Parts: sequence; C-alpha cells; structure tokens
Amino acid sequence: MSKKIIIDTDPGVDDALAIALAMNSPELDVIGLTTIFGNVSVKQATHNALILADMASYPIPVYQGESVPMVRTPAPYADFVHGDDGFGNIDWPASDKQAQSQSAVDFIIEQIRQHPGEITLVPLGPLTNIARALEKAPDIAGKVAEVVLMGGAVYTNGNVSPVAEANIMGDPHAADMVMTANWPVVMVGLDVTSKVILKPDLMERVAKANPAQGELLQKACNFYMDFYQPILGERGCMLHDPTNIAYLLDPSLLGMAEGRLRVITEGLAAGQTTFAPGDRKFPYAGWDDLPVQKICIEVDGSRMLRLVEDRLSNPVKG
Amino acid sequence: MSKKIIIDTDPGVDDALAIALAMNSPELDVIGLTTIFGNVSVKQATHNALILADMASYPIPVYQGESVPMVRTPAPYADFVHGDDGFGNIDWPASDKQAQSQSAVDFIIEQIRQHPGEITLVPLGPLTNIARALEKAPDIAGKVAEVVLMGGAVYTNGNVSPVAEANIMGDPHAADMVMTANWPVVMVGLDVTSKVILKPDLMERVAKANPAQGELLQKACNFYMDFYQPILGERGCMLHDPTNIAYLLDPSLLGMAEGRLRVITEGLAAGQTTFAPGDRKFPYAGWDDLPVQKICIEVDGSRMLRLVEDRLSNPVKG
Repeated sequence: MSKKIIIDTDPGVDDALAIALAMNSPELDVIGLTTIFGNVSVKQATHNALILADMASYPIPVYQGESVPMVRTPAPYADFVHGDDGFGNIDWPASDKQAQSQSAVDFIIEQIRQHPGEITLVPLGPLTNIARALEKAPDIAGKVAEVVLMGGAVYTNGNVSPVAEANIMGDPHAADMVMTANWPVVMVGLDVTSKVILKPDLMERVAKANPAQGELLQKACNFYMDFYQPILGERGCMLHDPTNIAYLLDPSLLGMAEGRLRVITEGLAAGQTTFAPGDRKFPYAGWDDLPVQKICIEVDGSRMLRLVEDRLSNPVKG
Repeated sequence: MSKKIIIDTDPGVDDALAIALAMNSPELDVIGLTTIFGNVSVKQATHNALILADMASYPIPVYQGESVPMVRTPAPYADFVHGDDGFGNIDWPASDKQAQSQSAVDFIIEQIRQHPGEITLVPLGPLTNIARALEKAPDIAGKVAEVVLMGGAVYTNGNVSPVAEANIMGDPHAADMVMTANWPVVMVGLDVTSKVILKPDLMERVAKANPAQGELLQKACNFYMDFYQPILGERGCMLHDPTNIAYLLDPSLLGMAEGRLRVITEGLAAGQTTFAPGDRKFPYAGWDDLPVQKICIEVDGSRMLRLVEDRLSNPVKG
C-alpha cells in the first residue's frame, strides 16, 4: 500500500523536482499540496503548485496556507535563487484549475484525523502551516505517522546565515514548535542536502526521456544552477527538497542520528537548529526532556541521483 | 629562536598537560603563566600554576588574572571534570613561590608592548584576561604575533551545551571581543581537540620515563579519565589544551579553515562560536567586514600523540 503524504511547499525549483519525484513514485500517494510563503509569496506558491499538480497521473488538490511567519518579521522572498516566479523566470502558462476553498491548516488537521496513523507530513518550506495546525488541533500530534521535513543544518553551515537554513529562518518559532512537539520528526537538512549535486546532463536526459514533465523542470533548473555556480565552482545545484522525498522512498540512502532538537528564535543565531545527540546531558539545560527526533547526517549521493533520474524519467501512467 | 608565549590558564588537568608540553619544547619560551577562573577559581588556578611553573627548567613567573566574566553571571567551576583542586583531587603539595604582584592583564599589555610582533598569546581558559587587556590597551592588537586559543566548536557539538564549549561559555562576551578583533586568531576547538584521545598506557610510560613531571600528570589524569569514561565508552581523555600547544609546535598536525567568527552571547545558543567560511556572504548580516581568522577542522591525532609522548617523556635539562 502506498504511503499517504501531504507535501507542504513553496515552489521553488527544488520543490518542483521534489514534487515530480513524489508523483512519479508509486510508493507515495500525494493526497494534497499545501502552500506556504518562502521561496515566493504564498499566492505564487499556490499558482505554482497548481501547475505542478497538473503533471500528476492522478488528481492532487491544492490548499493555500499561511502568508507570514508566526512571530518574526517576514523575510524577503528568495527571488535571487528561484526567480520572481519561483520557476527561474520561465513564463510558464498558468493551470486552469483553482485551489480548494479549505485552508491548508484545516486540510492538514482533517486528513490526519480522518486517517489516524496514516498521514506523513512532508514540509519543504517554512513550518508555519504545520505549527498552526498543531496549535489549533494538538491531538494531531498523536495521530500523524511522521513529519519528514527539509530544513536546518547541524554539523554544517547554514545557507542564509552561517548557522541558519532558509526554511527554518523563514519561521523559527514555528520550527521550534514542530521540532520539540511530541510527534516523530525526521529532519533532512543541509548536512545531507548540500552534498547531493544535480548536474545539467542529468536534467538533459530527463527532458529527453520525459518531455511532458521534464521541459518545465529542466528550464527551471537553469536559473537555479546560475545561482549555485559560484557556490559550487561548477554548473549544478543542490537537491534540497528532493532529498526529503528520497528519504521517504528509500531511507537506506541516508545515515541518521537521534537526539533532541531546538531552534534558536532570536538574535544572531536565529534560525539555527541545535541538536543534542543521543541521551547525552549537558550542564546547560534546554534540551532535556524533549522528544527524541531523527536527523540525517550522511547520504549516498550517487545512489540517490540514480533514483532521482530514474523516477523523473519515468512518469506513472494515468 | 624560540617563540615567546604567554599561557593564560585555569589548570585544570589538560592545562597541566599542555603547560608541561610547552615547557618541555625548546621551540617555545614560556615567558609567563597568567591565570583565569574557569575549571577552578582564579585563586586555585594561581595555586596550581605555581606548582606547574616549578616543573620547568627555567623560571616562569605567574600572574593572577580576572576572577569573573565581563558580563555573564559566573558559571560553577568544573569540579566534576577536574576535581575540587583542578588536579583530580590528588592533594599535591603547594609551591613555596608566590605569584607576581603585577596583574595578568598588565603583564600581557606590558610584554606585548615591549616585544612588538614577538608575543603569542595562548589562552587555555575563558578569554576574560585577553579581552580586558585589549579593552585597556587597544594598541596591542597590532603588536601581538598571534592569539592561539583553545575553545569553541563549529562543526561538532559543544561540551557544556549542544552548541557551546566550556571556555567560550565561561565568558562569551570576552570571546566575541577576542575573535572579532583585528588581530590574528587561531581557534583550536572541539572540532579537533575532541578527536585526540589520550589513553592510560601513554601516561604510564610518561610517568616511568619522566617521574619528576610525570607523577603529578599521571595522577591528575586519573580523575579526568573517570569523567571521560562514559562519554568515550573506554578509559581515556580528550586532549583539549595540549592540542593548542601542538599547533604551536607543528601546525602541519592540523587542517585549517579561514573565515569570520562571532560568539553568541545570550539565549539558548549562548557560548556558541559561529563561523562564516571564506569570504562567503550570507543574506543575513553579522559576519561581514570582520577580520578573517583561522579555525582548526582536522587533526592527525596519532602523530600528535607521538609528539605529546615524546615531549612529556623528555624534560628539557635546566
């Protein structure tokens, strides 16, 4: 039986790749896309999610989510990474479908309550929708299967500050709430996602093998690779969000550590994910008595890239 | 010509090992020990520094330093790591010498001014003396050879919180001042020091080869190894402060990275050293336009242990 997932997303080039990877994978049943501000405004995220939903072999409804963080002043959108449109300024035609009238938060709550133990939440952006759902309906903590999120950095640098990753910085208060809640969290952060580099030749093969999905994806990657070129010193891009989906498809691709997570919400280190490994106690408190969560610390990048290429090249027939 | 160093220290078992390593190394001329609170009170640190100074083949004066951090409420001393006496509760007889009347801060300033470009400061504890000297005499920044300090953690966990190392947590405001000042800093932190494990058999060989120094050092290590046993899962201890001296003796033992450092002074992440590598700019500011410093990220532990054993086994003849 396939795993029911809700992808919470701010597409975003790597969100697009991640969503295509999920919808082309029969192990996963994407029961909805919920949208969030982050790489783009929530309105643009919804616009883009509808375009991506049209690529699937089955109907995937889209639910619009929160437009601003819980406490922190909204950050600028990442137009220098993903373009003004989130897809690298490719002027792609809009979907003729509309988002559902139900809010993202209410959809998340409803689905978890209707399918206790079955829904995996898969956030690819700031965690505001997830935290708001938990705040409104604390009972969902005991009913969700897992929260598998892309975000954070523990044993490596951040990407918006030396210690903060963009999704967590997008709403650090929401992230601290999600990571310290009594539900199973898997954090797929820069420790692994920054080590999986997609090269242009892979996207060329995907576009040739699967033009219906591949044309948008390949075009979107161009702008994203422009951004990454000076960072990587070669043409390519980091596969942040797709690594999160890869974990769902084959957890053996990732090496894990267990421990307790806290997010720094204020000051110079705001947006940082801190990790107390195992059950180790420290003289300075703050992490004790929290639920033990999982973080990814290693990845088999070349094996993951083969999985990504295979799935992106082979859409599921409708 | 040997390198003139001032060791600023809160002995401390690993301080004792580091000081013995320095005084047994003809490449280094220890022109003074300045004391600081940290592992023990500053008074106990001075008491212990006088005992250690007596081990050298040449006179090493001791200067007492600051007793409390600049801003932060003093932390408890680390008696569970180093014993009440700082030497693992071994009831070692006091030196019959006294500390100098000049303060540690004034000695540091005087020596740097008298020997411009020649003095290397080697802090092994909280950085209060060093920051106070810089505050009182900003001109020393341009006159010091280098500040080579043991402290901090960048790509690994802290040891007093998941992100904070003990020396930096001892006075985070002083540490931020030292690391952002316009003088050359080398940070020898847990990224490397936690990877160099001293085993009991090495200390047994040292005590046999060099009983005059080795008896105290071996006895002191016993308590310290008791502390480390559950952390390491075997009998041994981390060689924090000696790694700092090893850098002075043979920098090829360490792998380095360059970048800009900031210390978090408040909140849950207080005591953390954050590092912006190279000249990489981040959307969130705070690290730009700071001097580029060096941190240690790799160490050849087995080669360093051979150096430590050789030097500790062979005191310089007076």
